[in-house]
Amino acid sequence: MKIALAQLNYHIGNFEQNTQKIIAAIESAQKAGAELVVFAELAICGYPPRDFLEFEDFIRLCEESLQEVAQSCRGIAAIVGGPSRNAKPEGKNLFNSAWFLADGQVKQVVNKSLLPNYDVFDEYRYFEPAFENRIVEYKGLKIALTICEDLWDLKDDPMYTRNPMDPLVEQGADLMINIAASPFDYDHAQARNQVLHRNMEHYQLPLIYINHIGAQTELIFDGGSVALDVAGKVVAQCPYFEEDLQLVETADLLTTTPERPDFVVPEKLSVIRQALVCGIRDYFKKLGFEKAILGLSGGIDSALTLALAVEALGKDNVRAVMLPSQFSSDHSVSDSEALVRNLGCPADLLPIQNVYEAFEATLAAPFKDTQFGLAEENIQARARGVLLMALSNKFGYILLNTSNKSEAAVGYGTLYGDMCGGLSVLGDVYKTEVFALCREINKDGEIIPENIITKPPSAELRPDQKDSDSLPEYEELDPILKLYIEHRKGPREIIALGHDAALVKRILRLVNLNEYKRFQTPPILRVSPKAFGMGRRMPIVGKYLS
Amino acid sequence: MKIALAQLNYHIGNFEQNTQKIIAAIESAQKAGAELVVFAELAICGYPPRDFLEFEDFIRLCEESLQEVAQSCRGIAAIVGGPSRNAKPEGKNLFNSAWFLADGQVKQVVNKSLLPNYDVFDEYRYFEPAFENRIVEYKGLKIALTICEDLWDLKDDPMYTRNPMDPLVEQGADLMINIAASPFDYDHAQARNQVLHRNMEHYQLPLIYINHIGAQTELIFDGGSVALDVAGKVVAQCPYFEEDLQLVETADLLTTTPERPDFVVPEKLSVIRQALVCGIRDYFKKLGFEKAILGLSGGIDSALTLALAVEALGKDNVRAVMLPSQFSSDHSVSDSEALVRNLGCPADLLPIQNVYEAFEATLAAPFKDTQFGLAEENIQARARGVLLMALSNKFGYILLNTSNKSEAAVGYGTLYGDMCGGLSVLGDVYKTEVFALCREINKDGEIIPENIITKPPSAELRPDQKDSDSLPEYEELDPILKLYIEHRKGPREIIALGHDAALVKRILRLVNLNEYKRFQTPPILRVSPKAFGMGRRMPIVGKYLS
Repeated sequence: MKIALAQLNYHIGNFEQNTQKIIAAIESAQKAGAELVVFAELAICGYPPRDFLEFEDFIRLCEESLQEVAQSCRGIAAIVGGPSRNAKPEGKNLFNSAWFLADGQVKQVVNKSLLPNYDVFDEYRYFEPAFENRIVEYKGLKIALTICEDLWDLKDDPMYTRNPMDPLVEQGADLMINIAASPFDYDHAQARNQVLHRNMEHYQLPLIYINHIGAQTELIFDGGSVALDVAGKVVAQCPYFEEDLQLVETADLLTTTPERPDFVVPEKLSVIRQALVCGIRDYFKKLGFEKAILGLSGGIDSALTLALAVEALGKDNVRAVMLPSQFSSDHSVSDSEALVRNLGCPADLLPIQNVYEAFEATLAAPFKDTQFGLAEENIQARARGVLLMALSNKFGYILLNTSNKSEAAVGYGTLYGDMCGGLSVLGDVYKTEVFALCREINKDGEIIPENIITKPPSAELRPDQKDSDSLPEYEELDPILKLYIEHRKGPREIIALGHDAALVKRILRLVNLNEYKRFQTPPILRVSPKAFGMGRRMPIVGKYLS
Repeated sequence: MKIALAQLNYHIGNFEQNTQKIIAAIESAQKAGAELVVFAELAICGYPPRDFLEFEDFIRLCEESLQEVAQSCRGIAAIVGGPSRNAKPEGKNLFNSAWFLADGQVKQVVNKSLLPNYDVFDEYRYFEPAFENRIVEYKGLKIALTICEDLWDLKDDPMYTRNPMDPLVEQGADLMINIAASPFDYDHAQARNQVLHRNMEHYQLPLIYINHIGAQTELIFDGGSVALDVAGKVVAQCPYFEEDLQLVETADLLTTTPERPDFVVPEKLSVIRQALVCGIRDYFKKLGFEKAILGLSGGIDSALTLALAVEALGKDNVRAVMLPSQFSSDHSVSDSEALVRNLGCPADLLPIQNVYEAFEATLAAPFKDTQFGLAEENIQARARGVLLMALSNKFGYILLNTSNKSEAAVGYGTLYGDMCGGLSVLGDVYKTEVFALCREINKDGEIIPENIITKPPSAELRPDQKDSDSLPEYEELDPILKLYIEHRKGPREIIALGHDAALVKRILRLVNLNEYKRFQTPPILRVSPKAFGMGRRMPIVGKYLS
């Protein structure tokens, strides 16, 4: 039997488009001779639908769309992810399900057993775990059909108290099919590879795995859909970040040959770049926007953001604005101009000195007898924010935020100033990684001028300011941040690893004190296993390490 | 036996202060002759600790603090909420527990069975449900000790698949004790009253219920701690929003007398006012701030916010700033001045015209040949934001946001302009409720000038602008918003209730399109059963009703 792997880019709540895409893929698969086509988890509504799932109206639209898809399954079957209702009074009212559609009908609904409820996942907010696990039989093939997390608990310290694969294997499964909505991070392909292979070794069954591609605000999906034979070798693998339809023969899955390749795990920097470009592109496309604007400071963060935005949206769709003040160095404009020339995008020069002086004059009475300080520095950053937002409002741009993760972590940024924007491109990329990504962008020729990469980072909000005046060097800062944020190590553990005790305490205190700023940050494209945003939920009024 | 009810205001992660408060209450209770004192859910660390629970270091501090509390339990026992570890490999690594402390030791740890994971609750993110339920025996008293949600599932459509009270009653319980962290909303006291009485009727047992008071950013806790006799009559009730220690005799709980009162459910407007004042006060106190600043527009939202802030922080600690533009009516300043006189707080007048003109001049080239519109309106709101933030940064104020829930819902506000602030006071109060609260504030004499209440609402960002130019009247808007937001009704259901179909679709579309703005809103004091913020999680790139 030929089975098709359908790796698609869905749009949350866009039932018309999702349904059309699914039906078109069923038709293509059928033309190619497939008897079964497999789509991703919650494909019908897009992932994550979040609290839309609490609306009866939204569930009705899911069901109607699934019925429409079922109508198109004649002579071919489809597995499509969507919510289903819990008919029993006890437990939550929905399941996260795989709908098995054939003969123009819903033939079977398989429910997810393990509901991830950590990091960016909130599935137990909406769904009841499956009450039972039964295999799907189709044309003599016994399918152990599971949903994403159902395969992820084979470990020494399991998060769940039961494993749905055990009863499915007892029922004599021939093949595992797992439909997923598993978001990208730079470690994810490796982790997924391990999880899939651990299941295959444990259960001695071939596996078809289908994931989403595309971005939904913060969450980026890389795909990685794959069919692995009984020895764990690749029979078919969809390309990362692209829609694709691949066909496999079940006979090929049940055997193996030595020449089949292993799973391809992509290179870290190149895949982060691809993910960020995908994240920008889909944010604009799915919101119905085409054009971005951003402020170019002459620094490395805004330079990298611009390069990625041009890659995502095209050079004519990204407008760069230089907003120098009296404290800006000459190279802040000349370096930006060189970058803009390299990229070929439209650019403006709007000096902020007049606006700054008007603020100073307006505040003369209340600021009388005070010294130039943080308030005056922030006025500059905020004046820039107002100008960029004015252009955004006037011409329908989305403003791109250019803050990096190191700054966001320690609060080195101005709320309503450089922290403005509809989307944060680099908010999950540490400063040291920003440098590495610039090198990646430049690997085939200079796009980001060398001087932007090599000059000492500065906010240029007062004379001769440098980031290193108030922060440790990024090479020292970032590893401590990573231990605290990604690895959730406390101060004792980080100090025990050899970091300076006073510095560790100071940095952790800064991170926690600045929770109030991050609360108002734009959505951040998630590329690490622990990004600021929906996956990291911290109290503001807390008094822990702060 | 005398049992003490300890209703306290904890601070998340402030172990030193929480531990001292708990030990001081144990000492007071012991002096008053109590043999058992009961504290709230997760009292040791404050509620909600959120992702602090993912730090081994944080759990260690919880355990050390509980050991310290145990040391003070000699001749008296205490029930204290805190996390505990799951010793089994399977399941999540923590429980949400009630620690039973006596004889200087931990005697028993009782784990929560039902983990709320809806609205503002994320407990299944951190905790494993109890594997078993066992009563606590102490001096011959058999206690059915449960934790908050454990009592909330007695209904026709239960959210959970088992009820922990059933096995506890089978073990011969004499008394229910429920320790809670149950946040306030204007319906909550009524709902809690019903839940407690339903349990008492079902299990025929007296009940002691202990809750938190005080605010933790968005979440406000009203207390409502109570001891109810076997007939559901009140033996002792702690006052709302106040720390308190009450003593009851178990003999009094096991009997009833006709003269005992019923549970007191407070009046809606007065309790919303108390909650908002508590929310402001605790946000400042727990962050270590004393002084607030806000912009006074002459409108009703900023007037009410100022009155509440003065009530919370004292008149000398709230600075009001009037920021008129060329479009401001004369009464915008004169009404604000009258309000400031009534309240006696410091005030400034900072006209924004010069700043606005500087922006206009700076944007002259890119804005050439365009019409005055939204961009220019927003510049005014943002200029005000910059001035308020400058004063905030210079003098250490927290800026209070004055947006109401109706505006926040439909996106009638300027991001980085009037949407600035450290805390949104009225973001969960619809405009029609804002009017009612002003009447409440004025009930013993005019504080908010009558003209502020009666004039037509206007943003005053262009000549003769009124809210009703672009929005329906609030009397028409708010009920539709409430059906959609609080009651999660879809368009069909709302239209079926008699609302105009085109209007409903327009409003729901506005709500969903403006998710991107609310993403960057300050934290909102939650007073309704469904507030914007942590309890309402919506996609930004979604295409549902939008």
